[in-house]
Amino acid sequence: MNDWLAHRARATPDATALVWAETGDEWTYAALDDAVDDLAGRLAGLGIGPDDHLGMLLSTRVEAVRVVHAAMRLGATLVPLNTRLTPRELDDQVELADVTAVVCGEATEQLAVEATDAAESVPLVSLDEPQWEHVEPLSAASSEPFDRADWADDDRLLLLFTSGTTGDPKAVTLTYGNIYSSAVASAFRLGILPEDRWLVPLSLYHMGGLAPLYRSTLYGSTVVLRGEFEPGPTADDVDSYDVTGVSLVPTMLKRMLDSRGTLADSLRFVLLGGAPAPDSLVERCRDYHVPVCPTYGMTETASQISTARTQEAVEQLGTVGQPLFGTDVTVVDEDGEPVDQGELGEFVVSGPTVTPGYYHNPEATEAAFSQLGLHTGDVGYRDEAGRLYVRNRKDDRIITGGENVDPGEVVAVLREHPGIEDAAVVGLPDEEWGEKVAALVVARDDELTAEEVEEHCRERLAGYKLPRLVDFTDELPRTASGTVERAAVREILTAPDRVDVADAEETAAGDASPKAAGETDERESRDETASRDGDDDAL
Amino acid sequence: MNDWLAHRARATPDATALVWAETGDEWTYAALDDAVDDLAGRLAGLGIGPDDHLGMLLSTRVEAVRVVHAAMRLGATLVPLNTRLTPRELDDQVELADVTAVVCGEATEQLAVEATDAAESVPLVSLDEPQWEHVEPLSAASSEPFDRADWADDDRLLLLFTSGTTGDPKAVTLTYGNIYSSAVASAFRLGILPEDRWLVPLSLYHMGGLAPLYRSTLYGSTVVLRGEFEPGPTADDVDSYDVTGVSLVPTMLKRMLDSRGTLADSLRFVLLGGAPAPDSLVERCRDYHVPVCPTYGMTETASQISTARTQEAVEQLGTVGQPLFGTDVTVVDEDGEPVDQGELGEFVVSGPTVTPGYYHNPEATEAAFSQLGLHTGDVGYRDEAGRLYVRNRKDDRIITGGENVDPGEVVAVLREHPGIEDAAVVGLPDEEWGEKVAALVVARDDELTAEEVEEHCRERLAGYKLPRLVDFTDELPRTASGTVERAAVREILTAPDRVDVADAEETAAGDASPKAAGETDERESRDETASRDGDDDAL
Repeated sequence: MNDWLAHRARATPDATALVWAETGDEWTYAALDDAVDDLAGRLAGLGIGPDDHLGMLLSTRVEAVRVVHAAMRLGATLVPLNTRLTPRELDDQVELADVTAVVCGEATEQLAVEATDAAESVPLVSLDEPQWEHVEPLSAASSEPFDRADWADDDRLLLLFTSGTTGDPKAVTLTYGNIYSSAVASAFRLGILPEDRWLVPLSLYHMGGLAPLYRSTLYGSTVVLRGEFEPGPTADDVDSYDVTGVSLVPTMLKRMLDSRGTLADSLRFVLLGGAPAPDSLVERCRDYHVPVCPTYGMTETASQISTARTQEAVEQLGTVGQPLFGTDVTVVDEDGEPVDQGELGEFVVSGPTVTPGYYHNPEATEAAFSQLGLHTGDVGYRDEAGRLYVRNRKDDRIITGGENVDPGEVVAVLREHPGIEDAAVVGLPDEEWGEKVAALVVARDDELTAEEVEEHCRERLAGYKLPRLVDFTDELPRTASGTVERAAVREILTAPDRVDVADAEETAAGDASPKAAGETDERESRDETASRDGDDDAL
Repeated sequence: MNDWLAHRARATPDATALVWAETGDEWTYAALDDAVDDLAGRLAGLGIGPDDHLGMLLSTRVEAVRVVHAAMRLGATLVPLNTRLTPRELDDQVELADVTAVVCGEATEQLAVEATDAAESVPLVSLDEPQWEHVEPLSAASSEPFDRADWADDDRLLLLFTSGTTGDPKAVTLTYGNIYSSAVASAFRLGILPEDRWLVPLSLYHMGGLAPLYRSTLYGSTVVLRGEFEPGPTADDVDSYDVTGVSLVPTMLKRMLDSRGTLADSLRFVLLGGAPAPDSLVERCRDYHVPVCPTYGMTETASQISTARTQEAVEQLGTVGQPLFGTDVTVVDEDGEPVDQGELGEFVVSGPTVTPGYYHNPEATEAAFSQLGLHTGDVGYRDEAGRLYVRNRKDDRIITGGENVDPGEVVAVLREHPGIEDAAVVGLPDEEWGEKVAALVVARDDELTAEEVEEHCRERLAGYKLPRLVDFTDELPRTASGTVERAAVREILTAPDRVDVADAEETAAGDASPKAAGETDERESRDETASRDGDDDAL
């Protein structure tokens, strides 16, 4: 097989492939195919081919869709990079994934340059006019003939980062077969129609934004792409473009409903994932006839593991439905033995969508897999109809606005501060974001303020990983064996009589439920980037 | 992967798998799964396992659906056998496909016994109370534990007979991957919805009837099965069971429309194949809002090669649409070189649905394949949008009521008659059946009548292969090189001043367009069996 776009352009050349919601511009499959051919030729002219790991550091734009398809056409491994990470974080990923070239644009060039500063051998290519001398403008590249890649199901299509549970980011290998199987199983669960239009307001460096690009190409349907997530305009897109399906994280859906009350009835499904869907949100969808389909998935399974249909979602609150066709979920106890229906255990997943493992990380791969399949770290149960309910995580991962945050990574950054002796990081419930990152810090002296801690973190961590609440203590609660007691940390951080160490002005304002130190009011700025980021991996 | 039904029963146990239209009885996927498990256990008890080639000689009934799934569960190769064949024809197929056991029922037991008379080592199993001593009743078989088959895409799922072009039937090998790819590509073209209901009034020993059973299991939708094709009641089923899709051959659709005027608007598509759809029929569908989707396919491609969507079907009369996703069609000239758009040539097909070849027939396989793919023998062209138009066949195959008839096979049978010196067989246009079989015979003396010729054929050929018109001549028209000139044969057989040699009564009736000798009026009896047989391979 050649790349999917090539097949699709032969099967339905005149069907609409892509709509750019910001302007209403449209591309047919034939037109997209031509544009991708041109781009692939230029990338080939820059020496990029099947052996390359092509980093994509781009804000959401039409050209990013072309890069996704061009990588497949050339047979290069695509490595989508999160534009919200710090240069330091990105540098790690570029190295870890053996990235051999990075495509950036005007909005991300600076970040790309800083991120590859340490690895000067990685060529940078810009879709726009570059500001830096060593960044190559794609427009100046001469087109070279290239061989269209042929591949087998087991060949690698993507390396996609997940925050993982050990602090270090891990690059998940996803094969052509993984993505294809997921697209097919999703079609079998949600249904597809040739006239479908799938709205994608999620970032393209996470599975939730990327998957619909591949899927829609396979299906021959239309992607409606939006650059900025804004609740009202995104809700309006559904109406303007007769959108039949949309992928969202709960935070986004809530804000769209807050903004517009309901969504247009062209919708056949709202695929809702990346974080648990609050019952109140599902009930609201029921009342306003929004066809919500809560889903559970992860990068390692190329997105959906299970997806509830609307009727069961509203009748069995809290369910994420039955596993998709071809996917098997076993619920196991601490010893890895299957438990009975209704009993809590860890979800272990097997099937054709499951990654073969983490790139160049056999230890992590070995730790994640058993004979039964991939151990997800998610704990829940299965009801009598085989529907899954996710309860919590075995590890301490925090999911905020759909993004995974590993507490260990934040703790490690906190400990780098000379004034911090020790720290614990947990997730606290948050109505807007599902969870928020919170830190309990043991300072070396009384001088350290929450603002200083924040400042320190901001330079080293992506925005969504920053503690929204910083509190201080003399000693972390630990078990006899020395392990931090996370429950006790949570208790301290949420205690109403907690002594706030900073931001006296805010506490002085007399709020009955005083705002904690360092709980800054960044909602607005965060919204613009964070929530369009949601999803992550589930959709 | 295990069998598809096992996966489906886990993914959506409570969804309706099957409706038996004659009674309205329904089975969920969980119930069907249980029944198949029971059947597979009994078949295992009779010693049937992965190495077996399980013949299925059954009229359309619910139990046949179970046999299809049980074979897959056991990993046995399923060999669907055409109940309309003569014992002699069946005997050939049983031998050719190395059938190791045959499942029959009350209605087909006699035929099964006669067909395996020469091959006594083939055990016969009946779903009902057997009349013959050596036929094993399934109800008496004890259930044995068995291993659920695991398989790879390239493993053989089916051997399905096609009449082929050389007179000898050929068993087409179809793999799990072929059938799966076809189901997925069909979904991508026609769309699927979880609540879909696919009406199957076609025989289960042809691709058109069999494919929806596999597909619907993959999709999780419902099959509505009908035992007898009767135009009115079948049309009524669409309404009664909220049918969203139906597979038909043109003859069947025409008769349903004749009977009921139009079809219920629950329909999203009428997949119309097995024979060219007359323009008049497509226009009628347009006028009555019947969502017709003309398709072109064959057993060797696990059904659809290309399928037109309704809009293009009615706007571009005669088209069978663009090839399905993943399928490539090259139009080639006599030398096997691709021709330009708009030019006539043979269709050569490649893609994941194409058979790996004919079972134990390397000569036929080699003859059918080139570097470009499978040479279909169908001649047509491609328009500027890549839509295909089928014009005629390179070989002389006759397609009547959706069944393929090889003229060579009929000629060979005719020549067996001591009174026949030579014969030529061609297809003549027929409003009801698309084509009808017609024979031009050189008799050894004047005594031979068309009735005698018919009688001779009836004992040796399935009903649909019988010449509907028999005429006599002194000499067959031949080219200089001795090849029969088929066009000239057709001219003789359709000449209005043709001398009819028999059935003087009918000609004496003074019909201006006299009915030819032997053109018997069997419509009614034929209808009952022949037209429900339609499809064959395309759908």
